Amino acid sequence: MHYPEPISKLIDSFMKLPGIGPKTAVRLAFFVLDMKQDDVLDFAKSLIDAKRKLIYCSECGHITDQDPCYICSDHHRDRSTICVVQDSRDVIAMEKMREYQGLYHVLHGAISPMEGIGPEDIKIMELLKRLNNDEVQEIILATNPNIEGEATAMYISRLLKTTGIKITRIAHGLPVGGDLEYADEVTLSKALEGRREL
Amino acid sequence: MHYPEPISKLIDSFMKLPGIGPKTAVRLAFFVLDMKQDDVLDFAKSLIDAKRKLIYCSECGHITDQDPCYICSDHHRDRSTICVVQDSRDVIAMEKMREYQGLYHVLHGAISPMEGIGPEDIKIMELLKRLNNDEVQEIILATNPNIEGEATAMYISRLLKTTGIKITRIAHGLPVGGDLEYADEVTLSKALEGRREL
Repeated sequence: MHYPEPISKLIDSFMKLPGIGPKTAVRLAFFVLDMKQDDVLDFAKSLIDAKRKLIYCSECGHITDQDPCYICSDHHRDRSTICVVQDSRDVIAMEKMREYQGLYHVLHGAISPMEGIGPEDIKIMELLKRLNNDEVQEIILATNPNIEGEATAMYISRLLKTTGIKITRIAHGLPVGGDLEYADEVTLSKALEGRREL
Repeated sequence: MHYPEPISKLIDSFMKLPGIGPKTAVRLAFFVLDMKQDDVLDFAKSLIDAKRKLIYCSECGHITDQDPCYICSDHHRDRSTICVVQDSRDVIAMEKMREYQGLYHVLHGAISPMEGIGPEDIKIMELLKRLNNDEVQEIILATNPNIEGEATAMYISRLLKTTGIKITRIAHGLPVGGDLEYADEVTLSKALEGRREL
């Protein structure tokens, strides 16, 4: 054991975080030692607070410190549209756009037979329950554009086919600012397939 | 404000760490939310403990949770040799080698006129005080092989010239496993200069 125990414990803590290897963990731990005591206490408090105070919204599943979350409890929002996403971070990405005025539903995952995640492991039942009141007219499936996300979107769209609710999927195509030359074949083929008349 | 307050505070805390930008901070914060409560409490505790329990050894300046540190209080070590390094991490690097049996002296920096760091800003006076008891026979200058480290080594060697203590500097040359072809000119010139007869 080369490090005094308190610092080796801190290094171990940092190494549990994703993308942080032994060298970065040492660098971060020594940085913490040079931080002001108050800043370190704040850091420790923010860790505990984030874990203790944050819950999932009982309506949409978005991460929040009040239930229902600020989106679900905002009466100015359009309650006839629900955008289905995989993760709370996706809600935040959508909100940054400042254009979408509807509600959300966070699935907390995607169907992935490879990882043993089936439809019952994500919040699909909770979505169905929200559709009972006839208020919802459109479901926008905004799961990720990869195999798991597509499978999940496909599953949900089939499940809801008989309800008469309009089911849409966000568009695939070239990202804005992208370069046709560097686009992969699948994206390019999707962009061509989804072409629109001007 | 897109994030609930506890999580945006946690993101801010992570962003204060070196090399962690906004996207990594968000990823780490959401990872913390998915961690077990006990692990998060441990993490917070390790931060506070590292800051509160760690002190600098009153003899060598190495970071420690007991004073004097485990190296200075180890009576099996050779007290006639002091290896002078810039940082506690350098002590740990030396200790990993498991070959050096002497003591250390941590300068906590290097002379750098560019950054306004003079000889009085690093622990050179403390080094001089340790030389009063005639026990020390060799000072190994193991500051970093860059401008600041060289300047510091030069300064200390001149300061101690009159004491009669043997002053040595760690060797410069090609790193083991390195490739001559890719070595920079300065390193190569130092390697040639420091050549030894076989």
